[in-house]
Amino acid sequence: MSRKEITVLEDLLSSNKKIAREIREHLTSRGILTVNLLSSPGSGKTSLLERIAEILWPEHRLAVIEGDIETDLDASRIKARGVPAWQITTGGACHLEARMIARLLAEIPEETEFLFIENVGNLVCPAAYDLGENLRLVLLSIPEGEDKPLKYPKAFLTAHCLVITKIDLLPHIPFDLEKTKREARKINPQLAIFTTSARTGEGIRELVDYLFQQRERWLKSHA
Amino acid sequence: MSRKEITVLEDLLSSNKKIAREIREHLTSRGILTVNLLSSPGSGKTSLLERIAEILWPEHRLAVIEGDIETDLDASRIKARGVPAWQITTGGACHLEARMIARLLAEIPEETEFLFIENVGNLVCPAAYDLGENLRLVLLSIPEGEDKPLKYPKAFLTAHCLVITKIDLLPHIPFDLEKTKREARKINPQLAIFTTSARTGEGIRELVDYLFQQRERWLKSHA
Repeated sequence: MSRKEITVLEDLLSSNKKIAREIREHLTSRGILTVNLLSSPGSGKTSLLERIAEILWPEHRLAVIEGDIETDLDASRIKARGVPAWQITTGGACHLEARMIARLLAEIPEETEFLFIENVGNLVCPAAYDLGENLRLVLLSIPEGEDKPLKYPKAFLTAHCLVITKIDLLPHIPFDLEKTKREARKINPQLAIFTTSARTGEGIRELVDYLFQQRERWLKSHA
Repeated sequence: MSRKEITVLEDLLSSNKKIAREIREHLTSRGILTVNLLSSPGSGKTSLLERIAEILWPEHRLAVIEGDIETDLDASRIKARGVPAWQITTGGACHLEARMIARLLAEIPEETEFLFIENVGNLVCPAAYDLGENLRLVLLSIPEGEDKPLKYPKAFLTAHCLVITKIDLLPHIPFDLEKTKREARKINPQLAIFTTSARTGEGIRELVDYLFQQRERWLKSHA
C-alpha cells in the first residue's frame, strides 16, 4: 500500500473506533449486550441466530441487524419469527462499519436484552472493524476445514468466542475437532469454544447460557 | 466512503488493471492459460487443484501461485506433488493484486501450459482485482448453501466458470442443485458450470477438458 492509502485507511479505522465506542456506551447503558457474528459465507450465522431466537423469544427480547452485500433474505428469515430485524445491504462493501449500526440505534426496542449483528460473510475484512459490540463471535463450520484459524488469524484473535457449527456433518467429513480447538487456542488462549449444530440443536443451549453470563458480567461492570 | 477514499480506491484499481493487462499479454504470448480461482474460505480450492494436477502432471505442465493471509500450507500441498508452486502471504490483505503476480513471472518455467492462481479465501474483495488471468473460476461448495450467487453477485458476475464442489456431501445437506445453477445463470448467463468432488474425483475430468478447450481458444485468438 502507498503512504496515501495507509493514511486513508488509518483515518477510516480511527473514526470507526470512535463511533463504535459511543455505540457500546449507549447500548450497554440501555442494558443491551451486543454480539457481532463473523464468519465465511455459508458457515451458518443466520441458522445459528434462528436457533438462539427459538430459545430466547418471546420470554427474552432480542433484536437482529443483518449485514449483506445484496438481498434481504437473512432479515426476512429472522422477522418470520417475530423478532425485530433490520437488513443493511452494503452494495458491494465487504464488511459492516460502526456508522451503519449507529443509524439504527433509535429503532431498537427499549426492552431489548441482546442485539445480534450478523456481519457480511467474510472471514477477513470484518475483523478490522469494531461495531460497538461487547462480544465478538467467530463461526467455523466443519466443512471449511481445520486450517482456518491459522490461515485467518485476525478473526480468531479478536473474537471472544468460537462457535464450531454443522457438527452434525462430522461423520461425513475428515475433521480433527480437538486439533482445531488447540490451534484456535494457540492464536487466542482466552477463546470460549462451543460446538453446535443448527440442524439438531446440539450445543445451542450452552451457547445461550454463555450469552446470559456475559450479559450479567457486562451489566455488573457498568453498574 | 468519502470522496478521498473513493479517489484512492479508483487509483489503485486503475493501476492494478494496467499491470494485469501486461501480465495477460506476457503469459498468453508464452502459451500459458492463466486461471484465477475465487471462493469463500474452505470451499476446496487447493483440493480441486490437487485433483487437476493429478490428471495433468507430469504429461502437461502447470504451475500454481497460492495466495493466503498467513501460512504456506497450500503451496506445500501442491509442491508435494512435484508441481512448481509459490506462496504469496498477504499479511492481512484480503485479496491478491496484479503487482504481486508480476513479481513472480520470471520464475514460471518456460514449458508451463497452465498457471493457476489461488486467491485469498474471500468471496467479496478478490472479485474487484484482475490478476491478468484469461479465465476466472468461482467455487461454491454444497455446505455453503444455495443463496450465495444472489448474496455475492460480483464474484459470479465476473467469473467465466462456476465449479460446484463437495458434491459428495449432497446426500447429507439440503441443497437444491438445479435452483443454484438457475440463480447463478440469472446473474451470469454465460457461466459454464461443473459439479465436482475432490474426494471422489467426480467432474474433474470434464473441468480439465474445459480448461484445454479454453487454452486452445485463447492461443488461437492470439496467434
